[in-house]
Amino acid sequence: MSKASATASSAPKKIHFWFEFASTYSYLSAARVAKVGKAANVEIVWEPFLLGPIFKQQGWADSPFNLYEQKGRYMWRDMERLCDGYGLPFRRPDKFPMNSLLATRVAMLGRGEEWLPDFARALYHANFADGQDIADSATLERILAALALPSDDLIARADSDENKRQLREQTERAAQLKIFGAPTFSIEEELFWGNDRLGDAVVWARSGGSL
Amino acid sequence: MSKASATASSAPKKIHFWFEFASTYSYLSAARVAKVGKAANVEIVWEPFLLGPIFKQQGWADSPFNLYEQKGRYMWRDMERLCDGYGLPFRRPDKFPMNSLLATRVAMLGRGEEWLPDFARALYHANFADGQDIADSATLERILAALALPSDDLIARADSDENKRQLREQTERAAQLKIFGAPTFSIEEELFWGNDRLGDAVVWARSGGSL
Repeated sequence: MSKASATASSAPKKIHFWFEFASTYSYLSAARVAKVGKAANVEIVWEPFLLGPIFKQQGWADSPFNLYEQKGRYMWRDMERLCDGYGLPFRRPDKFPMNSLLATRVAMLGRGEEWLPDFARALYHANFADGQDIADSATLERILAALALPSDDLIARADSDENKRQLREQTERAAQLKIFGAPTFSIEEELFWGNDRLGDAVVWARSGGSL
Repeated sequence: MSKASATASSAPKKIHFWFEFASTYSYLSAARVAKVGKAANVEIVWEPFLLGPIFKQQGWADSPFNLYEQKGRYMWRDMERLCDGYGLPFRRPDKFPMNSLLATRVAMLGRGEEWLPDFARALYHANFADGQDIADSATLERILAALALPSDDLIARADSDENKRQLREQTERAAQLKIFGAPTFSIEEELFWGNDRLGDAVVWARSGGSL
């Protein structure tokens, strides 16, 4: 067997990281996934998407953390202690979930670009540490400017018909993968749901399909 | 400070393991929690309870894995690969969730008894590896007999008014702790939900309150 075909049949070393900007647990994963991927020599593909349309398909008009009191209560306490454990700043936002549409449209322009992880981390920090309104274009402008990115240009392009279509297609890809929450890590068709399953996703990617 | 008060203020080294016999992920935890607790020198207190009344309070008349297609699809695939990883036998039951009332009443008689973990593991094996009907008293009789326990006596006492009351009170304790799913690990008022959070519960118990 040639070296090329041996390589072709080896384990996929790529994890798709599906994140939603309004999602608390996605904040945790966004903060650590790059470091974890690097340590494990697994490529991380950042995949922004909208959870709203997927929740609607399940009959939820709001976050399950708002719909189910105990689940919500648990999540906020869990975020507090996990952020403490990870050494991440955390402040419960006044409004939850935030409208993440514009932020996600901007993120779509960064797919495959080097700036996307930095932008995403800054956005999550604004939402879950600084108490800023991520639906406000002024917040996005500040974040983009701080990253030395052309904020006016990006925000204009974020709202273009072409980019809106791209985001609809991206969210449709998430639905086709049967994603139902965020964060989700996907390796080909295999899903790992939740920040607490990143380690399993890494093991799966490295082993070529076992835990 | 006296040695006694230093001991009194030290970390609680006890984890309460709340399990429901119909719960797939509880099967995983039941299989490994004793070993994990022993390795970490943390006492495990086995707490059988019924999830049905708690789901009803949240407006669910069925398991969320049946109510939400994608969640269910994910869970069955996840069970398959996790059981494979843990080296546990797994066969998707014909019926899900099974009626766990009688089995849980029997388990209530075993609270604090040495036989409860063995009984629970055998029950889970019957449900998720052997495809047996755990609502059938014949299944319970077989399991109890195999453990050299007085099956007729236990099944009769399981259905006593006193034991029914005990189980109602136990499930009420779970509700008061704000438990909303199984398995849940509790350390005093602190909850860790899901098989994938057992490690965090151990860290919390050992550290006296940090992750």
